[in-house]
Amino acid sequence: MRLLAIVEYDGTDFAGFQLQRNQRTVQGELERALHKITGDAKRIRVMGAGRTDAGVHASGQGAHFDSAWEKPLEILHRALNAVLPNDISIRSLTQVAPDFSARYNATSRTYRYTILNHVIRSPLNERYALLVSEPLDVDAMNAAARCLIGEKDFGAFGTPPRGDNTVRRVYRAQVERHGDQVLIEIEANAFLYRMVRRIVGTLLQVGKGTLSIAEFSQVLERKIRAGEAVPPQGLCLTQVKYERQVTRIG
Amino acid sequence: MRLLAIVEYDGTDFAGFQLQRNQRTVQGELERALHKITGDAKRIRVMGAGRTDAGVHASGQGAHFDSAWEKPLEILHRALNAVLPNDISIRSLTQVAPDFSARYNATSRTYRYTILNHVIRSPLNERYALLVSEPLDVDAMNAAARCLIGEKDFGAFGTPPRGDNTVRRVYRAQVERHGDQVLIEIEANAFLYRMVRRIVGTLLQVGKGTLSIAEFSQVLERKIRAGEAVPPQGLCLTQVKYERQVTRIG
Repeated sequence: MRLLAIVEYDGTDFAGFQLQRNQRTVQGELERALHKITGDAKRIRVMGAGRTDAGVHASGQGAHFDSAWEKPLEILHRALNAVLPNDISIRSLTQVAPDFSARYNATSRTYRYTILNHVIRSPLNERYALLVSEPLDVDAMNAAARCLIGEKDFGAFGTPPRGDNTVRRVYRAQVERHGDQVLIEIEANAFLYRMVRRIVGTLLQVGKGTLSIAEFSQVLERKIRAGEAVPPQGLCLTQVKYERQVTRIG
Repeated sequence: MRLLAIVEYDGTDFAGFQLQRNQRTVQGELERALHKITGDAKRIRVMGAGRTDAGVHASGQGAHFDSAWEKPLEILHRALNAVLPNDISIRSLTQVAPDFSARYNATSRTYRYTILNHVIRSPLNERYALLVSEPLDVDAMNAAARCLIGEKDFGAFGTPPRGDNTVRRVYRAQVERHGDQVLIEIEANAFLYRMVRRIVGTLLQVGKGTLSIAEFSQVLERKIRAGEAVPPQGLCLTQVKYERQVTRIG
């Protein structure tokens, strides 16, 4: 049967989600745990919804795999969490249709980028945030972010994983301040490689006043170069949405 | 001149605050940074308000030291934060009276213990919290915590750092739920060794229903044994208060 796992991980000590030779990856740890618990002779392949980069976190990554497990799912769920390393856990485990794909049936992915906007380093807050000491105009950043919403060519902000289609549909893009924290949330059908981090890097230029909102639009039109990608530790894949019907079975 | 530093640190990779041979300590890192920046031939000694244990964090530890620094304090502050490792930072640096002591002039210390009350492990929340899967009766825990307030003998919950005086004055003790998080805050003039962590361990018995509020009072009276100390990662020294006059100088 096919199963969908919603996975949380602290990306700090991973070389990203996707399997890589001689590197510690989330996919590799999930496959190792599955092998240990199910004892299947054949290696179980895990397919993730988004291939998060090294250092990027997730609180709601989706991943599917097949298993011949016959006992209640709750037992598999608990057993997997017992053997998975401390920096990964499976939040939920549900049966899905045999042709379900965590990647291709996802209708949207939501990423959140966290900025700590404070003059002094904060060791207790920087494992999951980027420190920005300059004052940030969050209203301007939010107005610029709104330019991203809709079906557009995002080639200015990233490269496609393969082929050359750089059109994506952004459903939501907002910037909010909560005390010292500035949170940037973007939901889209899919993302290009480094897209969120380069958008955040460019929004930071707007926040610091070195790029106007009108110039931010011109970045989208490729008339001005986008900012550099910000570091991975502030980024978190918070949710992957699926069509309701494909995750209901059994 | 004498200086008071308010220090934040992630205690995960420290063998506690206080200097120990061949161990990585907060005091050791502060003294090393001071030596590097001031170039003083004599080693500068740093005295902390509270000697937090290995793995315990701080967002507001107080520490004093003497320095012959002659340039503006802001320059020393910035230089120290530039050379300190990522898991320590100095939040503020102020001149104090030559006989000021971060330890003996402190009027109170506040500790916060964070519990993640959820059935499933959460890698993104457990660096600074203890996972407790059983449901917790937070109202009962809060009522029990109130028994701690006042000048009392806390010998049941800890040992004194030296001598045998186990009387301490607790100003505030409260337990609050914020979603999945249960926060326990205790402010006292001073604490015994392991006192907060054994209080939390005993409050957890109340929360799980294995100890009544009346029995919690009996622990204070040493008629019932206190619970085990909870692990260090949930504990954070959030504030050290000083009399206003001793920190005003210059």
